[in-house]
Amino acid sequence: MTTASEKPTLAQMLVQAELDDNAWPEGFRFGAGHCGIKRKAPDLMLVTMPRAVSCAAVFTTNRLQAPPVRVSRAHLAASGGRVRALVVNSGNANCATGAEGRRAVQATVTAAAKQIGCPPNQVFVCSTGVIGRPLPFDKIVKALPEWSQRDDGPLAAAQAILTTDTCAKLAAVKFRDRGREYRIAGFAKGSGMIHPRMATMLAFLFTDAPVRPAAAQRALRQAVEVSFHRITVDGDSSTNDTAALFAGGEGCLSAAGEKRFQRALEEVSQSLARQIVLDGEGASHFVTVQVEGARSAAEADLAARTIAHSPLVKTAFAGADANWGRVLAAAGRSGAHFDPERAEIWFSGLAVYRRGVALPFDEAEAKTRLDRPEVTARIHLHAGTAKSWMWTCDLTEGYVRINGSYRT
Amino acid sequence: MTTASEKPTLAQMLVQAELDDNAWPEGFRFGAGHCGIKRKAPDLMLVTMPRAVSCAAVFTTNRLQAPPVRVSRAHLAASGGRVRALVVNSGNANCATGAEGRRAVQATVTAAAKQIGCPPNQVFVCSTGVIGRPLPFDKIVKALPEWSQRDDGPLAAAQAILTTDTCAKLAAVKFRDRGREYRIAGFAKGSGMIHPRMATMLAFLFTDAPVRPAAAQRALRQAVEVSFHRITVDGDSSTNDTAALFAGGEGCLSAAGEKRFQRALEEVSQSLARQIVLDGEGASHFVTVQVEGARSAAEADLAARTIAHSPLVKTAFAGADANWGRVLAAAGRSGAHFDPERAEIWFSGLAVYRRGVALPFDEAEAKTRLDRPEVTARIHLHAGTAKSWMWTCDLTEGYVRINGSYRT
Repeated sequence: MTTASEKPTLAQMLVQAELDDNAWPEGFRFGAGHCGIKRKAPDLMLVTMPRAVSCAAVFTTNRLQAPPVRVSRAHLAASGGRVRALVVNSGNANCATGAEGRRAVQATVTAAAKQIGCPPNQVFVCSTGVIGRPLPFDKIVKALPEWSQRDDGPLAAAQAILTTDTCAKLAAVKFRDRGREYRIAGFAKGSGMIHPRMATMLAFLFTDAPVRPAAAQRALRQAVEVSFHRITVDGDSSTNDTAALFAGGEGCLSAAGEKRFQRALEEVSQSLARQIVLDGEGASHFVTVQVEGARSAAEADLAARTIAHSPLVKTAFAGADANWGRVLAAAGRSGAHFDPERAEIWFSGLAVYRRGVALPFDEAEAKTRLDRPEVTARIHLHAGTAKSWMWTCDLTEGYVRINGSYRT
Repeated sequence: MTTASEKPTLAQMLVQAELDDNAWPEGFRFGAGHCGIKRKAPDLMLVTMPRAVSCAAVFTTNRLQAPPVRVSRAHLAASGGRVRALVVNSGNANCATGAEGRRAVQATVTAAAKQIGCPPNQVFVCSTGVIGRPLPFDKIVKALPEWSQRDDGPLAAAQAILTTDTCAKLAAVKFRDRGREYRIAGFAKGSGMIHPRMATMLAFLFTDAPVRPAAAQRALRQAVEVSFHRITVDGDSSTNDTAALFAGGEGCLSAAGEKRFQRALEEVSQSLARQIVLDGEGASHFVTVQVEGARSAAEADLAARTIAHSPLVKTAFAGADANWGRVLAAAGRSGAHFDPERAEIWFSGLAVYRRGVALPFDEAEAKTRLDRPEVTARIHLHAGTAKSWMWTCDLTEGYVRINGSYRT
């Protein structure tokens, strides 16, 4: 854990946590604190719901999946997407821990179910932190009775799931339907999204809107597609990644209300996704990569992801260097079909390349624009009409420093 | 150009250039020196052959291809793979330079052909260096008459094609057939193979063995597959990458001689490929990634490439950290099918993970092994019998420093 630094991180400067209690939906109680997995910092969170709510989740696609991921997936299937409790520990991912890891999850689930008085398959469980070390689950089991009585609020819960994050990440949005106001709020953790560190990302979303499990699953998938999947390498997922939505309302939304719900869900998800990128390890720039004029959506995605993951593009942004050649070369190897001699490139609005040649741009002006904390690289391929985009951060010496000595 | 450093690079410590003149085949004359593209360093090389020799080449697959790549490819097709001259400039990639870039190549080719007295399509031309800036081809044209009279030897030629390389890269091997000794030798440039910088890699191989153009092409493809393609991101090619073989001998090899030729060609290619990785920007470790027990060769390749390109794995090697979780997670997202609970992992021979759990290994011993300049990560997937391997280097703060300020 080497994030300590005198200089505030980009996230510490730019992330504005939604702390307004009034912004959070009723029906979820947050117990959070330190149970002993980490040395001192908060490391355990328990969210309880007075009755079973709809739950949807999107999990990592990595073949290496931690036991809690496998158990939570199985529980959702068995319970029909109904959940009474969410247990999350940080400081230990309980991954690659063999049979002992599976026993740790079972013990946690059993204890939570007993405490709350619900079937075990209505308990959703996540772990995040280092992998390959036994999870001291006895500490979790011991803490759960007290945690289930506590009401620490969402900020404390958001803090209890952090690992190398330099700040808590929360977001909340309201929407109306048939004269009633609903709320969607959530929190997330993750601070290594340049390439996701294993056990990187968790996001939990809560709403008092009435949404059935199947609809919640569709809505979440769609929201993840335009938020957390935009900050993830394609297929580059960690062992514990999980995004979950808990919907506690009764009744049903109107057709227009469903659309507003979707928009609100996407807004919260995008806010959290942005906050994760801002807290990228060593990040000094938040970068939006925009691809236009691709032959197909798939090719636009390919180009955007390849540019956003190119170490050469990322290091150029670290140096506030308008290095369009690297953007063009990354697009060129991405698999997207286009003629480089027709393409155009802009950095934060400044045109730098057009139709095969460098434009004579003002280097000082480019430097000024790329020195800002939020920058864009935009490329028009002139091969079609499809678009895509990605969010990423730059690759700095700080990233290498943090990741060269994480485990030991 | 910020490779200057008080500390010698890995390449400067470990690369042993083959300087023995006797190791080089007859029939190739090397003119090399400074023509004015760079400020001071050698930047132009001309290799001439007294008669047309067989030429085979493997080019970048990037959609963004520099004019010299397109012209050389067309020339090989038109001449039936016969070449009399090779012109290479460094300091400028002549890429993304529009119509002017095409004129620059034509002027160079015309001047070289006239000087030597051969058809233009028997001139092979390459450029390497920054992209997007007009190539001052008048300087090349002016220098060629003098260069064609010079005999500076292979070391001077190898030096004239370097960009951010910290040392020249040469290799030579001999083999015998029917009582005669043949030679294969070559040189290469490239020093950003963590992810290939655009305009990164050039390799030129010369032999006095008698090999016809079609056979040379097959032999080169096969040699590239086990050398330069092992240090390249899959599909991650630069705009000017070229490997070319020039075979000047007369007569023909025996069947056994052809096999010895292939082995010798692969040996030279692998030596050059290794030297390029050793000169990787900021590199402090040479890393061999070995994958065993995959279901298929394609899956073994996928896993090896994904591990070798993972910034998390690379930064762990920079810190001499036996972080097997990152290796396992990279294999897990690679697309190779395997059960992580059956896999095994070794670092430089030390077993660290077996069948789902961490092995209790000696951290000090691991550190000692991973502090050595050459290290290995080996994973057995226990899913089949296919194998693969990759060569890479670690990702250090030096890499970020070099690439954050290359263009400006």
